[in-house]
Amino acid sequence: MRLAVIPGDGIGPEVVAEGLKVLGEVAPDVAATHYDLGAARWQRTGELLPDSVLDELRGHDAILLGAVGDPGVPSGILERGLLLKLRFELDHHVNLRPAKLYDGVTGPLAAPGEVDMVCVREGTEGPYVGNGGVLRRDTPHELATEVSLNTAFGVERVVRYAFEKAVTRPRKHLTLVHKTNVLTHAGSLWSRTVEEVSTEFPEISVAYQHVDAASMFFVTDPGRYDVIVTDNLFGDIISDIAAAVTGGIGLAASGNIDASGTNPSMFEPVHGSAPDIAGQGKADPTATVLSVGLLLDHLGRTEQARKVNAAVAFDLSTRDAAQPVRTAEVGDRLAALA
Amino acid sequence: MRLAVIPGDGIGPEVVAEGLKVLGEVAPDVAATHYDLGAARWQRTGELLPDSVLDELRGHDAILLGAVGDPGVPSGILERGLLLKLRFELDHHVNLRPAKLYDGVTGPLAAPGEVDMVCVREGTEGPYVGNGGVLRRDTPHELATEVSLNTAFGVERVVRYAFEKAVTRPRKHLTLVHKTNVLTHAGSLWSRTVEEVSTEFPEISVAYQHVDAASMFFVTDPGRYDVIVTDNLFGDIISDIAAAVTGGIGLAASGNIDASGTNPSMFEPVHGSAPDIAGQGKADPTATVLSVGLLLDHLGRTEQARKVNAAVAFDLSTRDAAQPVRTAEVGDRLAALA
Ligand SMILES: CC(C)[C@H](C(=O)O)[C@@H](O)C(=O)O
Ligand SMILES: CC(C)[C@H](C(=O)O)[C@@H](O)C(=O)O
Repeated sequence: MRLAVIPGDGIGPEVVAEGLKVLGEVAPDVAATHYDLGAARWQRTGELLPDSVLDELRGHDAILLGAVGDPGVPSGILERGLLLKLRFELDHHVNLRPAKLYDGVTGPLAAPGEVDMVCVREGTEGPYVGNGGVLRRDTPHELATEVSLNTAFGVERVVRYAFEKAVTRPRKHLTLVHKTNVLTHAGSLWSRTVEEVSTEFPEISVAYQHVDAASMFFVTDPGRYDVIVTDNLFGDIISDIAAAVTGGIGLAASGNIDASGTNPSMFEPVHGSAPDIAGQGKADPTATVLSVGLLLDHLGRTEQARKVNAAVAFDLSTRDAAQPVRTAEVGDRLAALA
Repeated sequence: MRLAVIPGDGIGPEVVAEGLKVLGEVAPDVAATHYDLGAARWQRTGELLPDSVLDELRGHDAILLGAVGDPGVPSGILERGLLLKLRFELDHHVNLRPAKLYDGVTGPLAAPGEVDMVCVREGTEGPYVGNGGVLRRDTPHELATEVSLNTAFGVERVVRYAFEKAVTRPRKHLTLVHKTNVLTHAGSLWSRTVEEVSTEFPEISVAYQHVDAASMFFVTDPGRYDVIVTDNLFGDIISDIAAAVTGGIGLAASGNIDASGTNPSMFEPVHGSAPDIAGQGKADPTATVLSVGLLLDHLGRTEQARKVNAAVAFDLSTRDAAQPVRTAEVGDRLAALA
């Protein structure tokens, strides 16, 4: 496995080191190449994602990213120039965000019940395309626009991915989340696409919910969801609510996937670079290890993925919540269990 | 007070009756005119909001709406043709959504702490304007767009309203919620506007959060918020999360406000018409009564509003959760307390 590793900034390198430790345990054939990208490189050189680096990344089977960001970098720079650039250039049209409440994890809900859902968020369209502009800036007549672009091509492929994911799961249920009663143009395309693709998957039961209602039910009754498919912006929001109710972003893994296999897919913990705790060995690497699990699963290494996930599940169920997390210790435990 | 009442469909008329009962108790000078609008009228006559009715509504001091909707009406019809039409025609640029966890109310969170926030959501711009379209419908080359429109005029007035609201509250804190790192055009306008207006309100502390992070913190730490100001679509989502963590939409009140006073403002419970329980006297009218409180407050009838809110707070703190709600009984109790 040719793996590109982008440790990034802050706690990124610390959690990635543990992810690689666990990966090395289950997959001895990993050839990892590290790439220096993120806030530090930008601050040093002004570079975000040089074309030559992007070309090199394309030559890998997958990418593992830690986290990028630093308070010294203005908001939007790394997002547009690196993170979203990677998603768009590598056609990561599926943003996969599982949210499972593991045994031993105490979330914020008094009675969460069993929660085990997967958000399948579109990754290359919607309001994220950067289309829009500003007219008469800094005048009382300023107008700022943001255009959400949604294509049959783009919606269909992510909807299809979601149905295929639902088929592999015991509950075989899929919920489309959108705001079709207000965003009628895009909403109609999404609804019609789900309806059409659903005819190919008669075993999947399909539901629809407006994003505001879903956001509420994610809190009051998250157990009702299995697979969710939604647009880029709604997915950004609801997958974070899903993470919140299943123990927080410290445990949330994600995949940015080109389902066609043309480009390498990228896996990363959802949390940021957390500069306030960087270098102290306090960061929880569990989300990174779960991201390694998604990576293995994506590459068809089902048995290796199963080992990684089982190690995490066992470790979480036996952790002493009173003990502060030590990054390397968690990694050691998970590597030993995997 | 010339009050226009739109009872609507389903449980709408039931909860509105109780709202009027309580209103009559504290404000004996109410002259209420009822308007038949909603699913039933549309199904009977094809009419949503005739111009003549809209003109009559304009002649009132305020509007109280129950809820509209019926499973027999296709999604989007009442939203675009009635609810959003009212907001746009009556220039309801402030959508006010308080969320307070009352004593005696058990929400879904294990340890919510004190929650008392007000979402100030923009109501006449953003992705709600209906701008956009569909090209090559029902072909593999279909493109659907949604355009978010944000003007300096529109953003400034709602931001100003939010600061003025924050001034009246003990914590004097305001959080802008947006997604400035991705929606850079609109985000920049919102950020700059908050920064500019904040110079006029030196006593208000200001924070910014991305909508995905805010959605998470609404669940994990809702007590940190005081006043939130945000765009139309983000406000739709996060105010529903706020409602969820403070006991659900059964208790959530809202105001659609023209802060200039040119047009009557409209107040309504956030819940829908709930056709499944309509006519059974089971609907909780509390959200409608709280909406009456917002209405009174908006009209400057501070003391009357205080009485209504105090009645609700007392009633909730002494309710027997094991007893099922009876609509008229709750209304009677609140009217007696007010
Ligand atoms: C960092 C940001 C651009 C990104 C997003 O909005 O997609 C993040 O919030 C995420 O969910 O991966
Ligand atoms: C019914 C719908 C159009 C409306 C909205 O999206 O604004 C509702 O969800 C609300 O929050 O008032």
